[in-house]
Amino acid sequence: MDHLNSTWDVIVVGAGLAGLKTAIELSAAGRKVLVLEARDRVGGRSKPGEICGQVIDLGGQWVGPGQKSLLKQAEELGVKTYSQYIRGKALMRLDGKLTESRTTIPKLPLFSLLEVGLLEQRWKRESRTLPTDAPWSAPRAREWDAQSVESWILKNVRTHAARELLRAITRTLFCAEASQVSYLCLLEFMRQAHGLEVATGVEGGAQQDKFVGGAWQIPRRMAERLCGSIIFDSPVQEIEQHEDHVRVTTPEARYTARRLVMTVPPALAAQVHYARPLSTRRLGLLQRMPMGSVIKIHVAYESPFWRRRGLSGMAFSNDLHFSAVFDQSPPDESLGILVGFMDAAHAVEMSAHGEEARRTQAVSDLVKYFGAEAAQPLAYVDQDWTQDRWSLGGYVAHMPPGVMTTYGSALREPCGRIHWAGSETANEWAGYLDGALQSGIRASGEVLLAQG
Amino acid sequence: MDHLNSTWDVIVVGAGLAGLKTAIELSAAGRKVLVLEARDRVGGRSKPGEICGQVIDLGGQWVGPGQKSLLKQAEELGVKTYSQYIRGKALMRLDGKLTESRTTIPKLPLFSLLEVGLLEQRWKRESRTLPTDAPWSAPRAREWDAQSVESWILKNVRTHAARELLRAITRTLFCAEASQVSYLCLLEFMRQAHGLEVATGVEGGAQQDKFVGGAWQIPRRMAERLCGSIIFDSPVQEIEQHEDHVRVTTPEARYTARRLVMTVPPALAAQVHYARPLSTRRLGLLQRMPMGSVIKIHVAYESPFWRRRGLSGMAFSNDLHFSAVFDQSPPDESLGILVGFMDAAHAVEMSAHGEEARRTQAVSDLVKYFGAEAAQPLAYVDQDWTQDRWSLGGYVAHMPPGVMTTYGSALREPCGRIHWAGSETANEWAGYLDGALQSGIRASGEVLLAQG
Repeated sequence: MDHLNSTWDVIVVGAGLAGLKTAIELSAAGRKVLVLEARDRVGGRSKPGEICGQVIDLGGQWVGPGQKSLLKQAEELGVKTYSQYIRGKALMRLDGKLTESRTTIPKLPLFSLLEVGLLEQRWKRESRTLPTDAPWSAPRAREWDAQSVESWILKNVRTHAARELLRAITRTLFCAEASQVSYLCLLEFMRQAHGLEVATGVEGGAQQDKFVGGAWQIPRRMAERLCGSIIFDSPVQEIEQHEDHVRVTTPEARYTARRLVMTVPPALAAQVHYARPLSTRRLGLLQRMPMGSVIKIHVAYESPFWRRRGLSGMAFSNDLHFSAVFDQSPPDESLGILVGFMDAAHAVEMSAHGEEARRTQAVSDLVKYFGAEAAQPLAYVDQDWTQDRWSLGGYVAHMPPGVMTTYGSALREPCGRIHWAGSETANEWAGYLDGALQSGIRASGEVLLAQG
Repeated sequence: MDHLNSTWDVIVVGAGLAGLKTAIELSAAGRKVLVLEARDRVGGRSKPGEICGQVIDLGGQWVGPGQKSLLKQAEELGVKTYSQYIRGKALMRLDGKLTESRTTIPKLPLFSLLEVGLLEQRWKRESRTLPTDAPWSAPRAREWDAQSVESWILKNVRTHAARELLRAITRTLFCAEASQVSYLCLLEFMRQAHGLEVATGVEGGAQQDKFVGGAWQIPRRMAERLCGSIIFDSPVQEIEQHEDHVRVTTPEARYTARRLVMTVPPALAAQVHYARPLSTRRLGLLQRMPMGSVIKIHVAYESPFWRRRGLSGMAFSNDLHFSAVFDQSPPDESLGILVGFMDAAHAVEMSAHGEEARRTQAVSDLVKYFGAEAAQPLAYVDQDWTQDRWSLGGYVAHMPPGVMTTYGSALREPCGRIHWAGSETANEWAGYLDGALQSGIRASGEVLLAQG
């Protein structure tokens, strides 16, 4: 293999969307690029699966109209989109009480609904005060960062239903409990995702469309363009920085390049041995950005029976384990498929219990949403991201209180010849496929501009 | 080396106090034990140094009367103790204002002093409700864990001086900002350390005594008793669990044993590849227990000039970088030495600036405490634990909000043939040398009782 004796311009660690985009951009600019990937596949948190003969996404899958990088990339690669099915009523279960609603705005008691509306306005105002590339330097950053979302809720939200809704939303966005996430981190997330309505919405929101055949095709096709410069099964163990090059060690080989771009999530980058220590701020950050906890679940039925009853298949709950559900049936209705998530503490609990117990739990929860017809699925498939060796969780890393203001400025700052990409480093749509692509564009530009 | 072809009963990872104690106990019970240590020395966060010919502790050094395991261990090894010098007045600088006080209780405005007294009583009451081995299951655990210490302070403390004092105390105990630590974690720390007065006190407290010649001698002498069963420069990269044994890979070799005890801090244990994944709760915990940030500093003068002015050499501040200072002069007064810490955000900041800048900062701060005589030191020595490859910070790991109640129960729970020790896993004096020893005693007992 001639990889071993070559010197590269740039080594990219990780062949998820961020790494592939970095490599493609740098190759296009004439750089000699090598991608090292720990797994035996590309795509990272985007991964194909199968249920009843249908190809599905076990990882990221949706795209919204504001996600221009992802839409452009898909179009270039000839991957088409179609709408998330939402005809009919959505279900919302709050503290055991099930309600149906025509819109994605849940049916809440009037005062709670008013309160949520006001909070949304407030978050928009507060988010706007965060500088795009440095939320940690906002005028009120320290105050907001000092508290968990839960502390903020207890102090600022009065009605029980609004409190529970905001806790459930935090779980949905971060796959983490409201107690675990900094309020500044939530504000920054909402700034990046164009507000709460867009982040959680379907029509006009981040869940508006899906990719025909699956989002996983995007990294597959991107990889084809790199013609063989990806080496699989090559987890990076050590990175040495020298005067004018970096040296990378995997279990099988050593590679040399002028610069390196790390695109894996922080908790995974923390497992690499950096022979010349990183900055204290960066080392601190790597210990302080845990991944969320999530299990993605597909359940297949003979038909999308809920559609006949005027339901969209969307369901959302604050007390069931299977807390967010969408319709994932093929357009020809040859099958009925529901897709959704167990997240945060529910995911931690159900990961321990094993797949059989999760299936039982998921089906039992679906019966509570959709009635007895949900009791007899054809098939069940889940992906437990908490146990994924090379993602360490999903969908995204979050910052606990006090981290962004003390360590946040290290997020994108290069350490010598090491540059940082990955969805977590994006300043728009961090945590989404789109953010991963954006981070690759930013990091490749950084490398091209760097001296030496 | 016959290590390579042997099979061991137990492999202990880490030759700090926890690992050494585990190995000694298991050897005494007839088990064949191998200790793998990443560094070229024993002691972990206990480490010798030197200033002006005096041997000093660059890591943990104090012992209090409640730390029975440490006192017993030192006595067995013939390491004697002597009192921390506290004759004279202590200095306290709050928001730029310096006051002197006869006791270690700082001079605060009367209402603040009353408030701190009442809070101390409240913490004692609340701490008592935490079950010794399961603080996460206390009746009010979820409520306490959902907030940062900072949120708790803002809600429960009225006077400015008391607030600032509590923030400074949190920094001193955890080397982390009040915003970063869960209030439940603080309560548990105070329960483990016999209350705030003992944790922060000198006479009768955890800083009452020091070891003649240095605390670092304790692990050295413990290691001598293990006669050669420690292998240095052997960072563990991978742990495979099989039906009836574990297999451990280091860069140089592979080792096999029936059981394994991990004694390194959580953030370091997170860097190991576990071929059979750990429980989701344990994996989650490993991502969520960052080490504090601390730089330990010694400054030497020709004599302990502060003593002649009736000062004890103790100084404490909420606004200087060099925020906690003690007298470390040799008993014969042949030199004057001050020892202390830059911690939390101050440590992160000053780590980046380098040793020369830290020296300038430390001396300038000492002048603010002790006057112009402090301006001309003979020597300066510091130990930046934030950059220590095999500790990743100091003194101890903390839990951010929401972690203890979701992931805490994994702290000591064995994962198959892997057992967990290290100061962080102690249920008394966690974070202290004493807790490390206690954890070794507990883990060795666990291994001896385990089947197969």
